[in-house]
Amino acid sequence: MRSLESYVRSISDFPQKGIIFRDITSVVQDADGLHLAVDTMQKLVSDIDFDIVVVEESRGFIFGTPIAYNMHKPVALARKKGKLPCETVSTEYALEYGTATIEMHKDAIQKGQRVLIVDDLLATGGTIAASIELIEKLGGIVAGIVVLIELEGLNGRAKIGNYRVESAIKYSGK
Amino acid sequence: MRSLESYVRSISDFPQKGIIFRDITSVVQDADGLHLAVDTMQKLVSDIDFDIVVVEESRGFIFGTPIAYNMHKPVALARKKGKLPCETVSTEYALEYGTATIEMHKDAIQKGQRVLIVDDLLATGGTIAASIELIEKLGGIVAGIVVLIELEGLNGRAKIGNYRVESAIKYSGK
Repeated sequence: MRSLESYVRSISDFPQKGIIFRDITSVVQDADGLHLAVDTMQKLVSDIDFDIVVVEESRGFIFGTPIAYNMHKPVALARKKGKLPCETVSTEYALEYGTATIEMHKDAIQKGQRVLIVDDLLATGGTIAASIELIEKLGGIVAGIVVLIELEGLNGRAKIGNYRVESAIKYSGK
Repeated sequence: MRSLESYVRSISDFPQKGIIFRDITSVVQDADGLHLAVDTMQKLVSDIDFDIVVVEESRGFIFGTPIAYNMHKPVALARKKGKLPCETVSTEYALEYGTATIEMHKDAIQKGQRVLIVDDLLATGGTIAASIELIEKLGGIVAGIVVLIELEGLNGRAKIGNYRVESAIKYSGK
C-alpha cells in the first residue's frame, strides 16, 4: 500500500519565493489517497471525546467534513471575513505570509461543547490559534486539533500552546 | 424525522439588500442535518456513472468530499484565483452579485473522465457553467451536477444548458 506521504506533491516557491508548498490536491485526487488521509486523521482522534468539529476554510472543509460525517458529529465553520450571514465573532491573525481575519457564527458553538479542530496544515499555528480563541470566546472547550500535514520547522505547536495536536504527516522543515 | 429543508436558515439582505441568503451552516451544524444532506445528494446521483467529483470552493467542498469518500471516488478542486499551486486553466464568470475567476489544475481531470460536479447552491448557474467550461477544456465529460439548494427563480438551469442537474431542495424564488 502507498504511504500517505507519497500522495503529497511539494511545490517550490508558492505562493512566495522560498516557501515549499505542500499540495494536498494530489492526495484527494486519488480515491485511495482521500480515504487514507481521512481515515488516518480520524484514527488519530478516535480516543478524543468531542461534540462538534470546527473546520477551517477552505481546505479544512475537505478533511473535516468526512470525519464529522463518519463519526456522526455536527460541523461548525471557521470562515474568512464576510462569508457568514449571521452574527459572528472574529479575530485577526498572522499567516505564514500576510494576515487574515476569521469568523465564526455566534451560535456555532454551545457553552461547554467539546470541540475538535480540523485543518489541512499546521504551519506557524496562526490560523489554529485564532480558531481556539474564537471557540473559547464562545464558551467551547478545545478537546483536540488534527491536521493532515505539520511543518515542524515553523514550530506551530509552541504558538498553539497546551492543547493536544495530532498530525498525520510531519515535515521537519518549513 | 425532520425534513432537509427544515435545517436551512434563511437570512434577508445578505450579502446584499434584496437577496435572501439560504444558510447551510445550520444544516451541517446538526449531525443529522449533515447526514441527511450528504445522503440525499448522494442518492440523487446514485445511478450516474462517474469517475471523479469536482467540488467548488468553498461550500462545495463541504458536501462533495463526503460524497466522494462514501463512493470511493477522487476529488478535484475548482478554486478561486491564485489558490492552486500548479499550472491551471481558469475562467471568469458572473456571480449573483459581482464577478469571480475560478481555476482548476491542468492535471485535475484526465481526458475522457466522467465528472460529477458538486456545489451547495444553484443560483444563476454562473459558477457551475464556469466549472463545466474548465472540465470540458481539460477533456472531461460532465456526467451530472448535484447541489443541495436550487433557487428556481434565478433560472440557473437555462444557463447551464443540456446537462443533468439534481437538487435536494428547491426554492421557487430567488
